[in-house]
Amino acid sequence: MSAPIAHGGGITAAAAAFGGRPEDWLDLSTGINPCPVALPDIPARAWHRLPDRHLVDEARFAARDHYGSGAILPLPVPGTQSVIQLLPRLLRRGQVTVTDDRVTVTDDRVAATDDKVAVVSPTYGEYARAFVSAGFAVDAVDDIAAIGGEHRLAVVVNPNNPDGRVWPAETLIALHDSMKAAGGLLVVDEAFGDTEPALSLAAHAQNLSNLIIFRSFGKFFGLAGLRLGFAIAREDILAGFEDWLGPWAVSGPALSLAASLLRSDVSAIRHSLDTRSSALQATLTSAGLRIRGGTALFTLAADSRASDIYTHLCRHHILVRKFDYAPDWLRFGLTPDPAADRRLGEALQGFER
Amino acid sequence: MSAPIAHGGGITAAAAAFGGRPEDWLDLSTGINPCPVALPDIPARAWHRLPDRHLVDEARFAARDHYGSGAILPLPVPGTQSVIQLLPRLLRRGQVTVTDDRVTVTDDRVAATDDKVAVVSPTYGEYARAFVSAGFAVDAVDDIAAIGGEHRLAVVVNPNNPDGRVWPAETLIALHDSMKAAGGLLVVDEAFGDTEPALSLAAHAQNLSNLIIFRSFGKFFGLAGLRLGFAIAREDILAGFEDWLGPWAVSGPALSLAASLLRSDVSAIRHSLDTRSSALQATLTSAGLRIRGGTALFTLAADSRASDIYTHLCRHHILVRKFDYAPDWLRFGLTPDPAADRRLGEALQGFER
Repeated sequence: MSAPIAHGGGITAAAAAFGGRPEDWLDLSTGINPCPVALPDIPARAWHRLPDRHLVDEARFAARDHYGSGAILPLPVPGTQSVIQLLPRLLRRGQVTVTDDRVTVTDDRVAATDDKVAVVSPTYGEYARAFVSAGFAVDAVDDIAAIGGEHRLAVVVNPNNPDGRVWPAETLIALHDSMKAAGGLLVVDEAFGDTEPALSLAAHAQNLSNLIIFRSFGKFFGLAGLRLGFAIAREDILAGFEDWLGPWAVSGPALSLAASLLRSDVSAIRHSLDTRSSALQATLTSAGLRIRGGTALFTLAADSRASDIYTHLCRHHILVRKFDYAPDWLRFGLTPDPAADRRLGEALQGFER
Repeated sequence: MSAPIAHGGGITAAAAAFGGRPEDWLDLSTGINPCPVALPDIPARAWHRLPDRHLVDEARFAARDHYGSGAILPLPVPGTQSVIQLLPRLLRRGQVTVTDDRVTVTDDRVAATDDKVAVVSPTYGEYARAFVSAGFAVDAVDDIAAIGGEHRLAVVVNPNNPDGRVWPAETLIALHDSMKAAGGLLVVDEAFGDTEPALSLAAHAQNLSNLIIFRSFGKFFGLAGLRLGFAIAREDILAGFEDWLGPWAVSGPALSLAASLLRSDVSAIRHSLDTRSSALQATLTSAGLRIRGGTALFTLAADSRASDIYTHLCRHHILVRKFDYAPDWLRFGLTPDPAADRRLGEALQGFER
């Protein structure tokens, strides 16, 4: 077991430390759409029955069309987190020998001591945690150029969290090809990719046999409580995930919502996120913060007094993200409305430099 | 990877083979309450936000009071299946040495080849599948008397599925004590235990350090699509499950429903299940079937022509469970209402012996 990682969403703990009722806090500590879509009807049978093959298929077809994954039917999973935790097992299931685009497993109990994994960092901390906790050596590399033949698997979050760095599709395709040549796997986490569809590798996945894409459902639609994500990869990799997750891994309501929302017109959501993102950046800039990066779902600011600003905001019952490894960074999630922009702006203006 | 196990709930496949629209079939192939409780309100934030500690705690406190687990706060999990799949990892995490009621892990990469696991059988097939697939030797024992010191872990489903066999609490406590003396773990799956609370070991768990109890939420409340269960065990075992499942393993709506429904008066549910169960048994008996066992949520019938009856019922668009290993058994889930009793009764009366 390894130490848990601090994530966003810890309003309960923040309110215990700084006072106020949790529901009165302004939670800017996550990268979730603060304006959730209206919930479509969920049929009673989605709650009542074990998720039937039909319900799973409807969600998979909708995801294929939405993500544009062509011949690949994305696999619904109960949150990306659930498959991040299975990645070590994917390597562990044997010496991966790539022959004619198929994995051949030669030994089911290979020792993991020689395995090295690369994670382009800093990024979402659960990747390193999952591999370290499974006994793998993790290289936290600062760019994809540092990924080499010694890495059996590499993780790139695109766009990256928390700094918003992006890699063009062709760069990642070239990385995939070189990793594949050395028998390695490339994981591209597109958790924040919904607002930048041109970056996505989904349309290329059917031709990239050693690529695994993770997509998040809840961030973009504002339904993070649902626990739903999708994996896009060739069939035997998805079959492995499916086998390890076991039957009925995803809830009926989640599958039902995916089938309807992934077929809906999402342009209004994109527009709303762009509006909220511009308002947030204007608020931060007015307060003298420097924008360091971000995506449409969050903005990363840099300030030498970030830690003091964090505490100051907590005293105003506003929670943002700070980072142990980058003490001058603060990540701001989107505000839900102009009133929240003003609340944030006033709190920031009140910070004495 | 191992072959998938046939479970109930395969209406899509049955309708494809025998015709009819899936929604017009009478699905008696599962052990789920056919009369779901009315859904309590789910707050918008349970859908929107990542499940916060507060929401998890509310569900855990409600589960503790409902199951009577005393000092142990049951751990919510996304369906019992998710923790069944983690049981091999619990053994794998090291040579388990029990000293003063604590597990000491001496080696994180112990080979599993010497490990034997006992599963009182026949029972829910996913236990054997999970262990075999992880490289363990599984003894399918026919009674708990056959569990011995060579078994590092034993699984007892109480009441058992599909035959409804029960073991009194004191018998399982004695089994726990002998397993603990040999350094082994006892898993008691009480998935169908809600209608027989006197059998439950939950109240004893705080004094039984090598016991792991699994409870199902969806079967009794008729909300199987929700994917929710609870594990009751000592703290370090639950911490292991929690760590391996990762953050936010259970959806916000599931936690919210657990917190309200586990605090509700369930006597009306018990009464309804008893009524439905009596009606089902009367229907089967009238049709000349012999009752072989069962629980309040399903009835196991025995008949030398079980396979023909199964096919006959499929032609009437009624799906029940049959068993490869016991060709004279048929398991009938509860019918939702008297009209369904009549439909089943008429179909059975039309079977020509």
